[in-house]
Amino acid sequence: MNAEIIAVGSELLTPERVDTNSLWLTQRLNELGVEVTQKSVLGDDRDRLAGAITGALQRVPLLILTGGLGPTEDDITREAVAQALHRRLLFSAEICQWIEEIFTSRGRKMAETNKRQAFLIEGAEMLPNPNGTAPGQWLDLPGGIVIILPGPPREMRPMFEDACLATLRERLPKLHIRTRFYRVAGIGESDLDAMIAPIYKPYANPVTTILAAEGDIQVHLRARGDTAEAADALAGELGNKILAELGERVYSTNGDPLETVVGQMLRARGATLAVAESCTAGLLGGRITEAPGASAWFLGGFQVYGTAMKTRLLGLDEKRVAEHGVVSEAIAIAMADSARDRTGATYALSVTGEAGPDSATPGIEPGTVWIGLASPEGVAAKRFLFPKGRQRVRKFAVQTALNMLRQQLQ
Amino acid sequence: MNAEIIAVGSELLTPERVDTNSLWLTQRLNELGVEVTQKSVLGDDRDRLAGAITGALQRVPLLILTGGLGPTEDDITREAVAQALHRRLLFSAEICQWIEEIFTSRGRKMAETNKRQAFLIEGAEMLPNPNGTAPGQWLDLPGGIVIILPGPPREMRPMFEDACLATLRERLPKLHIRTRFYRVAGIGESDLDAMIAPIYKPYANPVTTILAAEGDIQVHLRARGDTAEAADALAGELGNKILAELGERVYSTNGDPLETVVGQMLRARGATLAVAESCTAGLLGGRITEAPGASAWFLGGFQVYGTAMKTRLLGLDEKRVAEHGVVSEAIAIAMADSARDRTGATYALSVTGEAGPDSATPGIEPGTVWIGLASPEGVAAKRFLFPKGRQRVRKFAVQTALNMLRQQLQ
Repeated sequence: MNAEIIAVGSELLTPERVDTNSLWLTQRLNELGVEVTQKSVLGDDRDRLAGAITGALQRVPLLILTGGLGPTEDDITREAVAQALHRRLLFSAEICQWIEEIFTSRGRKMAETNKRQAFLIEGAEMLPNPNGTAPGQWLDLPGGIVIILPGPPREMRPMFEDACLATLRERLPKLHIRTRFYRVAGIGESDLDAMIAPIYKPYANPVTTILAAEGDIQVHLRARGDTAEAADALAGELGNKILAELGERVYSTNGDPLETVVGQMLRARGATLAVAESCTAGLLGGRITEAPGASAWFLGGFQVYGTAMKTRLLGLDEKRVAEHGVVSEAIAIAMADSARDRTGATYALSVTGEAGPDSATPGIEPGTVWIGLASPEGVAAKRFLFPKGRQRVRKFAVQTALNMLRQQLQ
Repeated sequence: MNAEIIAVGSELLTPERVDTNSLWLTQRLNELGVEVTQKSVLGDDRDRLAGAITGALQRVPLLILTGGLGPTEDDITREAVAQALHRRLLFSAEICQWIEEIFTSRGRKMAETNKRQAFLIEGAEMLPNPNGTAPGQWLDLPGGIVIILPGPPREMRPMFEDACLATLRERLPKLHIRTRFYRVAGIGESDLDAMIAPIYKPYANPVTTILAAEGDIQVHLRARGDTAEAADALAGELGNKILAELGERVYSTNGDPLETVVGQMLRARGATLAVAESCTAGLLGGRITEAPGASAWFLGGFQVYGTAMKTRLLGLDEKRVAEHGVVSEAIAIAMADSARDRTGATYALSVTGEAGPDSATPGIEPGTVWIGLASPEGVAAKRFLFPKGRQRVRKFAVQTALNMLRQQLQ
């Protein structure tokens, strides 16, 4: 089955805003075996929107609209759908009372304009909104279904999941989707694709998607089958081949980010981590502590951005720093060593590099980063040359440092 | 004048990808006084796309398509436009030779499939592509204009700027756009709107847009006028009223982010900055060093995430920490004081709080953050309660710390 999605709101036609509801909805629809064949964004113009609705219903049996359900004059989705379908809008005393109660429970009085939200399109079923005052609407037409959802994601998502998903699933031909999701580090996107393209290309089902961020690649497999078992077998067959080829480059098969995986490894060993950061200036510590509960394995560290801080906070020998230069193997090693020593952590990571855009260090190309790792087994450092761009270099450095620790812990 | 934008590509209908070309194009079109009334995304399906093109040309006099100009069978934009307009596709030996030369200059041979890119829609003008092999096309129709651009932004943007902008400007009624752009900190979005809505609401021109991130609000004004002077006078009139109302909450009128503004203030005073970070664990240092050249004012600091690190790295008294609790005024003050002392910086910022999602500190509500500031004039700390969400709390804390320093420096 095919579907179209229309996002409504003049703010979504400005250079600043993008409709992301349709991404989330597409994911849910794909899982039901529904393909999205067109997405549109329209402003708060009733006639234009009514025209777009009429057009969409000539093409597809399922149309989902998001947004334009608020209480103001600008919110015209209800009116536009009614106009396109030549149906009336009917005031529902029941919905009005329900909205009034929301206001009362918040200790406020319902404004007169909120009555606009109590109008249902003739023949529509009301979709309750657990997180706001705008109810959604579900319309069964002779030729298809129209679903109207509010714009704010925290209202739209639970409404779709609680009030639409089960009914849609019942109406649709049975189709089962099973997925695999691998996160990969320590390899570039094109190298990864060269490795696994010969494996996944012969498969039209599962569909393989590769997404790359700085030093972090995601491989998605989506298999369709008549039964859940058939879909799972297909996903597993291709998935296992890809896993075998990528080996320990795969750091997560359940979606966990790298800092969580590393944190779990440290926790399982009763080990702790410290950092010493020059060019990343704290980003590595910030990343490690994105996971709640990180205090079980992350102690802290040193932001030694200025050269003098390497001496002052970490006790590095001033002459040695001058001799080797701050972006060097010797300094990366000394930083990791000292951070481990001064914090009492089991492991310490250090980062020193030239993030650019210009080189502040003569002879050091922007993108050059030394990463050090001190552990009970000793200390070592590796040199990397990351793709240009100040923030990119720093993100690559953080991801790569975490991956070095993961490899050490394996 | 109104315009529509159609982005072509099946990958743009997956849950992972979003069309961003239309944001850039909308910005350019708005500057020309053109309003975008609908944006659509379609996959690589010729009939569907031809239908969408026919529909758009019934509504607006300017249609821009992006994507689907590659050399493969999937790339069907040329064919779809020809089909919608009932025009033929004509092979251009000249374009073919131009594409061949690109391959030759890269030391490669043109593939047979690239010949597809040498077909022009009857009556179209070729738009040269300085960054790729896909030429664009410009079509003058009795009722309007169709512009076809490649999908990759680095090909699309220069093509539009170099080959389309001047012609469009000539054809359009003369309209001048002038803007104002204010960045604001230290106030919430709804409080800000309550302050300035009575000022900007009476103005239909300039158009006012407010965008909010964690602790960082942007106010955009866009004024239209028959002359540049008229537009600028309008933008200035409203802008000055808003500036007067917001006062020193406005930290930037040229788009500079807060870390750049603070960095410039420190540099102008020959002053330096250090940090001591608990719940942010390095994010403040990471943010300060997003600006290149930050080593002129940022020294470094301490990531004292674990409680023991506050004693070990900053020398805080263990009993005092236990007595006050780590999330307290006394500890925020002691952290800032010690960081300033141990680094020798002119100023030091400290952050200690409960980012959540759960409270690790009995009696401390998640979202509670103490921010300390030590300066030559003394040391003080302030308590904040930020909206829930671990990453949100941490981003708010970073922004608020920088803003405290800005206010101190003013």
